[in-house]
Order: sequence, then C-alpha cells, then structure tokens
Amino acid sequence: MNVYDAVVVGAGPAGITAALYLVRSGCSVALVEKLTPGGQVLQTEAIENYPGFPKGIKGWELADAFAAHLDELEIDRFTSGVASLSSEDSAHTLRLEDGTELHARAVVVCSGARHRPLGLPDEGRLTGHGVSYCAVCDGNFFRGLEVAVVGGGNTALEESLYLARLASRVHLIHRRDTFRGAKVYQDRVASMPDRIEVILDTVVEKLHGARELEGLTLRNRVTGAVRELPVSGLFVFVGNIPGTDFLPDAVRRDSQGFLLTDAEMRTSVPGIFAAGDVRAKLCRQVVTAAGDGATAAQAAFAYLEQLHG
Amino acid sequence: MNVYDAVVVGAGPAGITAALYLVRSGCSVALVEKLTPGGQVLQTEAIENYPGFPKGIKGWELADAFAAHLDELEIDRFTSGVASLSSEDSAHTLRLEDGTELHARAVVVCSGARHRPLGLPDEGRLTGHGVSYCAVCDGNFFRGLEVAVVGGGNTALEESLYLARLASRVHLIHRRDTFRGAKVYQDRVASMPDRIEVILDTVVEKLHGARELEGLTLRNRVTGAVRELPVSGLFVFVGNIPGTDFLPDAVRRDSQGFLLTDAEMRTSVPGIFAAGDVRAKLCRQVVTAAGDGATAAQAAFAYLEQLHG
Repeated sequence: MNVYDAVVVGAGPAGITAALYLVRSGCSVALVEKLTPGGQVLQTEAIENYPGFPKGIKGWELADAFAAHLDELEIDRFTSGVASLSSEDSAHTLRLEDGTELHARAVVVCSGARHRPLGLPDEGRLTGHGVSYCAVCDGNFFRGLEVAVVGGGNTALEESLYLARLASRVHLIHRRDTFRGAKVYQDRVASMPDRIEVILDTVVEKLHGARELEGLTLRNRVTGAVRELPVSGLFVFVGNIPGTDFLPDAVRRDSQGFLLTDAEMRTSVPGIFAAGDVRAKLCRQVVTAAGDGATAAQAAFAYLEQLHG
Repeated sequence: MNVYDAVVVGAGPAGITAALYLVRSGCSVALVEKLTPGGQVLQTEAIENYPGFPKGIKGWELADAFAAHLDELEIDRFTSGVASLSSEDSAHTLRLEDGTELHARAVVVCSGARHRPLGLPDEGRLTGHGVSYCAVCDGNFFRGLEVAVVGGGNTALEESLYLARLASRVHLIHRRDTFRGAKVYQDRVASMPDRIEVILDTVVEKLHGARELEGLTLRNRVTGAVRELPVSGLFVFVGNIPGTDFLPDAVRRDSQGFLLTDAEMRTSVPGIFAAGDVRAKLCRQVVTAAGDGATAAQAAFAYLEQLHG
C-alpha cells in the first residue's frame, strides 16, 4: 500500500515548493502531476517579477530550475491526474486516474487552474484551429498574420505584448472601458498603437470559419455597434477555473470555486491544505504560489506533528 | 512635502518585492531602509531552499539579485530608521530617524525582526567580544577555536553546520530534548559528532570573561547538573523580536509582538499592510517573505483603487 505522510497534488511552483519543504522536514512525500512539472509557468514566455532574476527569466527555464530542486530528494513521483479524494479523520485516500491508490495523513492541493473559455458555440471546435489559450504555445503559428486577444488583466496585456512581436497586428478586445492589468503593461501596450489596436467596451459575439478561424463578430456594449474583424488567431485570457473536481464538497470554496484557506493555507477540512492558484486570493503570481507552498508545507508538518501526539 | 501612494518600510525580501509590485502597478513608492537592502538574507551564508536556485545561492548574492530588481524603477529611497507612524483615516505620516517626514495613503510594513538575546547579565557587554548573533558575520573570528551555539530551530542547526567548518569544535546547546529544526539539518548535525557536540535539556546560566568571552556555565534542566564549558565564542539563535517599535498600538500584535494580518496581509488598521518576518506566522523563509510582499502590494493596490472611488 502506498502510505505517505503527505501527498502533494500538482507540480507547479506551489507543489514543487511544498514537496521540497516537506521532504526537508523529514516527511515521506508523494507528488502527483498529470503533465510536465512547472504548471502555468511553462505557458509563460518571460517572467519579469520573480524576485532573484532581475533581468527576467524564460518561463521554461524557471520551471526547470524549480523542478531541479526535487532531483536529489526522496519523493515518489506519479504522472497522472487525480480522480477523487476521500477523507476519514486523518486518513486521506487519493484515487489517481491511472488506477493507483495513495494514502496520506495530510494532502497539499496545488492543482492550479486552467484557462476559462469565452463560452461561444464554435469555440471548442475551433480550439487548435485558430483559437488558443496560450500565446507561448501557439503564437508562432501566427507569424505575420492578424490575431485578436480577449481579456483585460495582466495575462491579456502581457500576451498581447508577446504576440505583437510575431503577428502583423494584434487587436486587444476588452469588455470594460479600463484594463485591470498592471500599469507598466498598460503603458507598453499604449506605446505601440501601430502593433496593438485596443478595442474597449467590446465583446466577441461570434466566431467564423469552417475548418480554421477566419474572423470574429464584435459588439460594442455601449453603442451596440456590430463590427466584423477578420483574424487568423484568437487568444483568450479571461480568467481561470480552479482544478478542484476531485475534491469532496466538504472542502469549502468561494463563489468561483477557488479553495478558501486561512493565512497558513489550511482548508476547511483538517489535514487538507491548499497552495497556489487553486486558492481564493488576490495575487496569483509565481512568487506567491511558491510562498504558499512553503507555508502549506510548514502547516502540514505542524499538523502531522500534532497527530503524532 | 513627500506624498506617496505607498511607503514600504524595510528592504529585505518582503519589502523589495512589495516595492517592485507596487511600482509595476503604477503607484508612487518610497522605500525606507536603515541598513543595506537584503535584510536577514545578508546574515545567511547559503540559502538552499529559495525556489529557482536548485544548487543553492550565497546569501549576499541573493540579496544583490533582489535589490537589482529596484535598479531601474522609479522609487524614492530613504536610508534611515522609522521613528514613528501616525494614521488619520487614509493619511499616514512616517517620521524617519533622520528627521524626514513622509506621507502615504498606504503603508507596507516589512521591517523584519532582530535577534532575541538570551537575557543574561553580561551578554550586552560581551557582544562583539565573543558573543554573536550572526555566524556569517562573525564566524571567521573563531577559526580553529571552540564555540557554543544556543538554540533548537532551523537557524541554530544551520549555523552550527556552518560554524563546524571553521571552529575546532561546536557545542550545540538546546534547552529541550528534541530540536524543532528540519530533519535534513538534524541528520547532518548528527552525522558529525566529532565536529558538533549536541547538549540537550541544557541552558546557559552564566557567561565568563573580563574583556573577551572565556567560557559558559551550563545547567542541565532535568538533572540539575552544572558544568563549565570553556569556549571563545557563543552564537545565540533563540528567536526574533519584530521591528514594530514605530507602530501605534492600534496595529494588533500576537503575544510575542508580531503583527496579525489576514491572508491578504491586511493588518487591523485600514491602509496598513504587513509582510515578511514581522508578521505572526508559522513559516519565516525568504520565499514566504517575498510571496507576502507581492500579496501585500496587491492588497495595498486594491485598497488604493477603492480609496479613489
């Protein structure tokens, strides 16, 4: 039977840091990740604001550096999604999608979040055929072509700047009259009107294209005016959906489904901790995810110590 | 008059990260630090568990890398301690020890913590004459000599390992029967009994030496046995005292004086945020301080936005 002091779900910055701290505290640890370690960092071109890298660092380089911390540590790694978690007192059972069963006295949930779709009729069909949720992954397909970006936060602005170097022109569409993203990104976007057209107060109403995306129908939310925009690519950055499907209802969420924790990363269920983007919180950054991971590990360690009596 | 959106007090990992995030959000920022930027990182020889540096990094190198983030940003820097902070609604006034007065709509307190002394009669007199609170700063003075370390947490263990490479022998004195520090450090300490003698259940009762430390009187708390230990150096790692003298009583503290915050780093006073070692929390690490700093900046930014209406 696979019995651990702690199982960490997810190997992004939060999960890697949590696993690192737990092992260093002497706990037996399993780390479950369905994809490559690194999380959303892998989908980010360059990271400017992770302290310690003042010149910035490529997303994949930072992901590699994080993962390398685990190289010489005794951690059992499982490559699979998690199907379910059930908890009975201090015994937690995780069923992985590959059929493996893991038992743990504490669980640290670092399962992150995935991209939220716009929810348009043809969006699923055209994903991978012009519609994308990751500029670093797919931007290169659109060299010299016109693309649209939807969103108003940091990600939408950052990715527009990234795409502006590849695409012939970027149309940045936001449903409100101001952006939520950081001023530095807003200023940079505003400084290149020939590369990035900003379209405010506007929503995408329809996607066009038989096998590949060919264009969008836009509607101005204030004037009601409708406009056709021929583009080859559409990049959607309108928020995230937390990866919490496998968790029982007893683990409390906010209205958007993100996990509620206290400042020590404890969820509403004793022995279950959460760290990183899966948490309900204001600031979703690599450094806050990593900090969350260390804090969750320490809280889990204190919990395990107190179980021992 | 020096009026800012935000004043950040302290330029350790928390303060530097908070300032970085606030400036990137478009806020006007002043950063006040009485010493060199870097905080306690500067007093740490090597840091193994800051994610992104899997081979470890020297404390001063990491401090430099953090500080370099601020190089090209518009931040007003003040080199001084803070004498007092007074708050009236959303107007906060900081009086610096050099007489400067700063006005801010939000304050992020990242003033860290200083070393707690043992509280023995001759401790003050012998500090700098054999008694030290920083192995990286003073260890080199004790090459080939016998030293004692007092404490049971991570710092005491880490610094004993560091000193074991310089001193002829390290006597690690802890008042309890087990260490609180991480298992990896405990194992490493236990693996070198010829370099590090572990003395448990024991307290230092007296310091000896006219002008320089010459030895200690130890007492076993269980047996009551008293023992003389001739050493040239004594390194004390028994916790920290938060740097909160300048704050009004309205900012709530825990029983040890650390600042109470919620998970978004808000203190009990609107517009005053806290991040890093000055907070009441379980896990005091470089990565949690930096994460706190980013979170506090985001919360301060949200607070400032809502002030604007």
